Amino acid sequence: MSTNQPSERLIVIGGVAAGMSAAAKARRSNPGLAITVYEQSGYVSYGACGLPYAIKGEIARVEDVVVRTPEQFAKQGISALVRHEVLAITPDARAVTVRNLESGAVFEDHYDKLLLTTGGAASRIPIPGADMPGVFTLRTVEDGLAIKAWLDELRPARGVIIGGGYIGLELAEALAAHGVALTVVERLPQLQPSLDIEMASHVQAELERQGVDVRLEHGVEAISGDDRVREVTAGGVRFPAEIVIMAAGVRPSVGLASAAGIALGPTGAVAVDDHQRTNLPGIWSAGDVAEAHHLVTGRPAWVPLGTTANKQGKVAGTNIAGGDARFGGIVGTSVVKVFDLTAASSGLSEERARAEGFSVKTVSATAGSRAHYMPGGHPIHVKLVYEAGSGRMLGGQLVGREGVAQRVDVIAAALHAGWTVEQLGELDLAYAPPFSPVWDPILVAANLARQ
Amino acid sequence: MSTNQPSERLIVIGGVAAGMSAAAKARRSNPGLAITVYEQSGYVSYGACGLPYAIKGEIARVEDVVVRTPEQFAKQGISALVRHEVLAITPDARAVTVRNLESGAVFEDHYDKLLLTTGGAASRIPIPGADMPGVFTLRTVEDGLAIKAWLDELRPARGVIIGGGYIGLELAEALAAHGVALTVVERLPQLQPSLDIEMASHVQAELERQGVDVRLEHGVEAISGDDRVREVTAGGVRFPAEIVIMAAGVRPSVGLASAAGIALGPTGAVAVDDHQRTNLPGIWSAGDVAEAHHLVTGRPAWVPLGTTANKQGKVAGTNIAGGDARFGGIVGTSVVKVFDLTAASSGLSEERARAEGFSVKTVSATAGSRAHYMPGGHPIHVKLVYEAGSGRMLGGQLVGREGVAQRVDVIAAALHAGWTVEQLGELDLAYAPPFSPVWDPILVAANLARQ
Repeated sequence: MSTNQPSERLIVIGGVAAGMSAAAKARRSNPGLAITVYEQSGYVSYGACGLPYAIKGEIARVEDVVVRTPEQFAKQGISALVRHEVLAITPDARAVTVRNLESGAVFEDHYDKLLLTTGGAASRIPIPGADMPGVFTLRTVEDGLAIKAWLDELRPARGVIIGGGYIGLELAEALAAHGVALTVVERLPQLQPSLDIEMASHVQAELERQGVDVRLEHGVEAISGDDRVREVTAGGVRFPAEIVIMAAGVRPSVGLASAAGIALGPTGAVAVDDHQRTNLPGIWSAGDVAEAHHLVTGRPAWVPLGTTANKQGKVAGTNIAGGDARFGGIVGTSVVKVFDLTAASSGLSEERARAEGFSVKTVSATAGSRAHYMPGGHPIHVKLVYEAGSGRMLGGQLVGREGVAQRVDVIAAALHAGWTVEQLGELDLAYAPPFSPVWDPILVAANLARQ
Repeated sequence: MSTNQPSERLIVIGGVAAGMSAAAKARRSNPGLAITVYEQSGYVSYGACGLPYAIKGEIARVEDVVVRTPEQFAKQGISALVRHEVLAITPDARAVTVRNLESGAVFEDHYDKLLLTTGGAASRIPIPGADMPGVFTLRTVEDGLAIKAWLDELRPARGVIIGGGYIGLELAEALAAHGVALTVVERLPQLQPSLDIEMASHVQAELERQGVDVRLEHGVEAISGDDRVREVTAGGVRFPAEIVIMAAGVRPSVGLASAAGIALGPTGAVAVDDHQRTNLPGIWSAGDVAEAHHLVTGRPAWVPLGTTANKQGKVAGTNIAGGDARFGGIVGTSVVKVFDLTAASSGLSEERARAEGFSVKTVSATAGSRAHYMPGGHPIHVKLVYEAGSGRMLGGQLVGREGVAQRVDVIAAALHAGWTVEQLGELDLAYAPPFSPVWDPILVAANLARQ
């Protein structure tokens, strides 16, 4: 694709969920657009959320999480260049400086429109030994391949996962499937911070039931070894480990944006409007690097999830191609499978709602996943968070062995609608004995609420 | 409980879902109320929806579907009298005439407040042989016990189910588990009339995959046999059968109401306001005998389901006890398990929406129940029905092997909220690879819609 064509030129920095969904949407909407994607890693358009299952071995090959290859994008007229790192954006010249990581060559490219979808990066806690062989983070396909290879080749007997958020929890299941005896060390007094502590305790109990050693309020202090990792020290305790995963959070990759004068929002991620525009003309942003409007707080939030990245990418692609699309905002819905348990939440936890300044009430209930007389059912724990006085729903959490993953979507819908907990309790939800009690667990909880 | 006490007296006619939830709620709200329930069958407070699973053998004993016994209600101060048929209501005298079906004795009882929860009755098609031994309907625990006994004792090799609605479909699974070779005969050109015909075709395919002979447009003409049933004739074809289930629809049991001057609505069920009041002072009604306000059409509807019965019963009980509760209405959400398939719908089908006079558009999509790279996923077929021009959601249907039962609740929420299909497509739904693709099947369908 030659730059002396008269067509308008789009450069996309970062080719995972947001970047590639934007590129594909822009291509469909405006066949005349010249589109180049620069991606630092060796893969574009992959489902990073699938990597724990690839490591586990449930997915045959790690590369199976790739949705489309550069060759497939080329057939659509999208030039997706992997192993190309963008070093700088020069907005005044509408230029980017790029390094080909294979050849080392550095070159300039020019855009009419730029989409910044650099995503997020796993936090590496700055402690001794953090870069030792056998210490991994998980973001890219290469990370997944490296962890899988380490497991397959070294067959580690013991491992430590640093961080009890959803990536740490999913990797606990994945590593346990390889026979690794695991310790999860977490700095906070609970796992999975999107849940309130009493709901997170069910997740902890499931890990422990599966033989995982969970150490809360154990901040990691050092990693040590010889030619490879041998030990993690956390909370003053030494844990032997032949594999260590750092899953201690994610941060938005805003280095390029900041250097180019692209404004960040209050969360530290790139500020965007509902059309995914940044403060600079001709530059859009989307996905894990960007903020999103949170419909419960009415303020910008940074909740890096694949669903939002895909939606924002599609909106950005439409607008870049000359259309007019608007991103409706998020309520912060997520779900995680932890061995045989599922934990899900939408909106604000009680703790978070208080921190946001809401006057909070909560109601909790436990009800069956099936009619009481049906075999095979399991309890579902429900917690609803709502505003005192108005009764307006602020969030909800569910934990159970079945019927959790889509049930949380009803809470998400209530948050989108701005319903009160009473309105939530009036919903005409589906019922058949294999799938629910006649009073759905969400209705049971909602009907116990007192405004 | 003696009638010469000064306390206010509530009589409930019919002690299943609506009646007993009303009685229990009224008791909790007003401890002074004297409450008597007359129930024609031998059981109160049972989950009729569980009966197919009891017949199947998945539930150990048919009686396990009973939630609470008359003895348990007695401890709460509720007198629940089974095998008592109310023969007449005399509103002017605030009296009911009751027959004790055990002793044959007929007596009068007086009420201050009356709740009519007589439910529905299975339609018996008036054809020769409809009352022959081995021909069953299914509404009560006794019906379930009779079917189970027939299966266990006579071990029928062949059976016919008359009617392809949800009770017929659930009983197909139940009877097949007993080794009965089955034919389902249905008068209409499709099964499960809450679905549009192309969605119902997936249900038909599942039945056929399970070895069930499905005969559409085969109206039943005769049932014949000797001391017991031997054959069903439908659509001119003779089907041998040692067991026959009539599952050809349900009608509201309005005989008592009509005779007493209680007004029926346009659907033929008892007309009620949002407080479950009938046209007669001091008389409430709820459950399968009553109508409900349909939030999509804005008109009364008759959709007899256990969920609505429980909710309406609770509202009636609150109001009878002197409180002020309002039933918010229905959107007509239901789900049925058919062997390994689940079919669900909420709101209006395309056919029904057209019949209601809406200008209708639809969109259909098929998407995975899990991320594309996850093993064990199955396609989910989604159809959304919405209003041309406004884009307002009118209904939705889902069919698939997993992830259907709660997913339909998102459509139910959209109907409660009065959202457009575009608004439905903006929802922040939960995603993790074991539970959904990154674009939920509902979002895939909604985003294909063009207003």
